[in-house]
Amino acid sequence: MNDYRGKRVILTGGLGFIGSNLAIRLVEAGAGVTIIDSSVPGCGANLFNIAPIASAINVIDSCIGDVERFTSALKDADAVFNLAGEISHSRSMEDPERDLYLNTVTQLRFLLACRANCPGARILYASTRQIYGKPVYLPVDEKHPVQPIDFNGVHKCAATQYHLLLARRGDLDCRVLRLSNVYGPRMALHLPQQGFLGVYIARALTGEPILVYGGGEQLRDPVHVDDVVEAFLRAGLAPDMEPRVFNVGGPHPLTLSEIAAAAARQSGRSPIHHLPFPESLTRMDIGSYVTDLTRMQRELAWAPGIEFEDGLRSTLAYYRGNSDRYLGFTKHPERPAAVRLEYPASTQ
Amino acid sequence: MNDYRGKRVILTGGLGFIGSNLAIRLVEAGAGVTIIDSSVPGCGANLFNIAPIASAINVIDSCIGDVERFTSALKDADAVFNLAGEISHSRSMEDPERDLYLNTVTQLRFLLACRANCPGARILYASTRQIYGKPVYLPVDEKHPVQPIDFNGVHKCAATQYHLLLARRGDLDCRVLRLSNVYGPRMALHLPQQGFLGVYIARALTGEPILVYGGGEQLRDPVHVDDVVEAFLRAGLAPDMEPRVFNVGGPHPLTLSEIAAAAARQSGRSPIHHLPFPESLTRMDIGSYVTDLTRMQRELAWAPGIEFEDGLRSTLAYYRGNSDRYLGFTKHPERPAAVRLEYPASTQ
Repeated sequence: MNDYRGKRVILTGGLGFIGSNLAIRLVEAGAGVTIIDSSVPGCGANLFNIAPIASAINVIDSCIGDVERFTSALKDADAVFNLAGEISHSRSMEDPERDLYLNTVTQLRFLLACRANCPGARILYASTRQIYGKPVYLPVDEKHPVQPIDFNGVHKCAATQYHLLLARRGDLDCRVLRLSNVYGPRMALHLPQQGFLGVYIARALTGEPILVYGGGEQLRDPVHVDDVVEAFLRAGLAPDMEPRVFNVGGPHPLTLSEIAAAAARQSGRSPIHHLPFPESLTRMDIGSYVTDLTRMQRELAWAPGIEFEDGLRSTLAYYRGNSDRYLGFTKHPERPAAVRLEYPASTQ
Repeated sequence: MNDYRGKRVILTGGLGFIGSNLAIRLVEAGAGVTIIDSSVPGCGANLFNIAPIASAINVIDSCIGDVERFTSALKDADAVFNLAGEISHSRSMEDPERDLYLNTVTQLRFLLACRANCPGARILYASTRQIYGKPVYLPVDEKHPVQPIDFNGVHKCAATQYHLLLARRGDLDCRVLRLSNVYGPRMALHLPQQGFLGVYIARALTGEPILVYGGGEQLRDPVHVDDVVEAFLRAGLAPDMEPRVFNVGGPHPLTLSEIAAAAARQSGRSPIHHLPFPESLTRMDIGSYVTDLTRMQRELAWAPGIEFEDGLRSTLAYYRGNSDRYLGFTKHPERPAAVRLEYPASTQ
């Protein structure tokens, strides 16, 4: 992957989970990396994530919507990995305007700034399987209907459409990866609303019980962050072509019970507790999800290489060596007040 | 259609083109009508539209996002016809944040207020064929891929998804009508960015040339507003059921040349001018569009009854009697400054 040598790369959300892993790989590949990240509370930014490369990169402490703060960095960009955003489904239901701001309003501003300053750059957007909603067939390919069941899905879908319409117009060269459940080093384990995999890993580390709701028979296909990073790097290099959307998932479907069992096994301490499915989660439950990897394999010669049991082992090893950096946060971080977008009355 | 007698109906955007026609029909049917409309410049509100029923309805001068201004009206509602919004594709490209605010931010607030205050009301949303983008097959049914080619399409799509996800969750009882090109009395003829049909009608009235770009062979299926009103009324009464999305279009596909010829013929004065397709429009051109009416016919026993030539004749007759109310506006209304959504820094 030496094609990134000397390339100037912008990474939004680069202090977060996937972004920091991608930043490390890009620095190793010889790219010049600039991270844009304002460490929005709740979104997973962690300066420790980039400790291995802190001296080799440029970090701009800015919301991606405050475009005047990084215009000059954009002007030089060869590629933009656009990973900033909020991923919590539950939090989007509690404060929809916050999610709308973080995932849609700021993305609109960011892309318009890219159009103005780096129209030739390849742009890679991290979207999510959540926009498909409850699958109507498995495995889910890129033509599956888009039927989000929470506000996060709606807002990530809108940002996806921004990327795609600007690409269709010839304004920007965008690719979109729709990610399944990603796990690995540098997850925000202290943010339970970011997904069950982080919760399972945190509990495996601490020896707390691992909770399985209902029968635990729903399928997921966890994908290791190293595989996801490889997917982004390939999508960043592939020639300009259709299609522009790719589903990215793990090597095998596993039931939630199997995932919990693996976490308990590798923990050596955590028991598994079965509980009734909470009503609050029922209404956001998507049932089973499995990624159709055909397009990624065919177009980008990419397939996930890391089996879950192996990936989980190395992931736990990472956190065991750095647990104070990931579990040392308050477990219930202070929530900001509800967000309200303002529209100057004078312009209405 | 006496099932609306005594019903309390909220109509957002009720001073606009379709909304005012719907309000008149609802008053005739014996409904109690409350309009919520803040007359956003550029969106087609015109107090003259509701002159025939002004004494019979309640008008709340409020943006649909300022929910505290109409909470008590919502509490009584049996049905909500949600037609507020900006429909201009070109304007959304000039000021995407304005479009995002008018079509998405305010819709989110409005629907959350409906959930809190009238969860039992039937909600009917006016969406647009624009969200399908450039059709990949004709006629376009409700399963056609959603691939908007402008910001207006993205934002109307997000609002559509708000309605549908709240319906899927059981929070609200929503239906969505995706409208083709609607024409008839009470269009905002002074706003050329609202679509070519209004422009053709305005020019037929004044005798100015009717412009056809390119070969004029693209298909459209103009639908008369009376047919659209009937579609809304039926969707408002149908029992709670899937599906929730319906495409609404006209009785016959016509080429743009045929539409222009009809307008010129009925004008008696306007010549037709053929011009090259402007580059600025090429990038927003969707080619041909024809609505698949199967679902509306099957589920709601609705079909468009008004042939274009007949509908155009009565439409021109309406405007000839009221031309000062529709052509008397400045032709190039003052544009508000670009909109920027604010997010209080303290809550980030």
